[in-house]
Amino acid sequence: MSVVTIERKVLEKNDALAAVNRERFSARGLLVLNIVSSPGAGKTSLLEATIARLSSRMRIGVIEGDVQTDLDAQRVGRYGVPVVQIVTNGSCHLEANLVGQALDRLNLDDLDLLIIENVGNLVCPASYDLGEAMKVVVLSTTEGDDKPLKYPAMFRQASVLVINKTDLLPYVNADIDAIRRNAWTVNPRLTVFETAATTGAGLDAWCEWLVSTTVGAHA
Amino acid sequence: MSVVTIERKVLEKNDALAAVNRERFSARGLLVLNIVSSPGAGKTSLLEATIARLSSRMRIGVIEGDVQTDLDAQRVGRYGVPVVQIVTNGSCHLEANLVGQALDRLNLDDLDLLIIENVGNLVCPASYDLGEAMKVVVLSTTEGDDKPLKYPAMFRQASVLVINKTDLLPYVNADIDAIRRNAWTVNPRLTVFETAATTGAGLDAWCEWLVSTTVGAHA
Repeated sequence: MSVVTIERKVLEKNDALAAVNRERFSARGLLVLNIVSSPGAGKTSLLEATIARLSSRMRIGVIEGDVQTDLDAQRVGRYGVPVVQIVTNGSCHLEANLVGQALDRLNLDDLDLLIIENVGNLVCPASYDLGEAMKVVVLSTTEGDDKPLKYPAMFRQASVLVINKTDLLPYVNADIDAIRRNAWTVNPRLTVFETAATTGAGLDAWCEWLVSTTVGAHA
Repeated sequence: MSVVTIERKVLEKNDALAAVNRERFSARGLLVLNIVSSPGAGKTSLLEATIARLSSRMRIGVIEGDVQTDLDAQRVGRYGVPVVQIVTNGSCHLEANLVGQALDRLNLDDLDLLIIENVGNLVCPASYDLGEAMKVVVLSTTEGDDKPLKYPAMFRQASVLVINKTDLLPYVNADIDAIRRNAWTVNPRLTVFETAATTGAGLDAWCEWLVSTTVGAHA
């Protein structure tokens, strides 16, 4: 019983700090996305491909969240955008206070779009608001088409679903229509993109959506 | 501060219940494995292929853990082995008390090997002992070769690493030697198998290890 109470208090405190972050973003018209997925679904590769295509058109900043290592910040940093790495030291999700600290190390006035790459975990990050405008859930085709049904909270919390690694569809037992159907069963409002971050397939639609949504946030 | 204390108490209580489970297993010489991985790494497919090969040679039982749905229990149940599904209703890991309740619905005296398939999550299940003899971590080649470094707790807690979906190696940016090297950096005592559950590659070595380890537990 006491555990549930404590957990509720943790979430309430997180929500309050997320609201502070959200005000910092909206005061600047800064679009902030919280990218979530299982480990290895391709969040970082999608981020690299996105930055490579869009960094001449808009100013992008990144916050990387990982249980250990700054490997992802190193990868993204090569593209010349500002990156802050948060190492959670064992914790399975980012929280609003950690993101708030990371924000102090970025010049938010110099950004149009801030992408937060969460810890690879399809369960826990669903409960923690970071102040983002939207959660984007990335699902790899290699994970199978039943995942929206098995991990519904994340798909319910997300506004956008990116089905990644479509280049591997010929080699895996996954049906992309079944992924869409299962995702929409859980959350009929999901905007869905299909991408292969390593080949570039589908990135145009995803990037154009990012550009128009970023412009919309700024207006 | 109080949250940390509560969390320690939760883990202590879980450890005590795991010890009770472990005694039930060792009194019968029953080998119990706790299979962990990211969502979609192929735990259930590996389980299906393993049962298909071994069910005539030993008596296998399964406990399925999922956040939602009994899809995995339905898949495994087709192979004619006793299966109990635990639905955690949002919780990101199995705990020893849930497993204890599931044990009451299996006839343990009629089993040689009990496989517990945990919730798909490469972080949280590392902290929760279920009473198993060993944790087996399954890593899909599609997740990339950096995962042991980025999620070290799970690889440190595991006794066995199964590198699955080796059939997809020609199509992904992952180096199987780098996976082994990174895993051994984190835990030099890991026993490693390479499998492709859907093609059958590598299953002989994995299954022979299972047979000899099951016999060893019974002796």
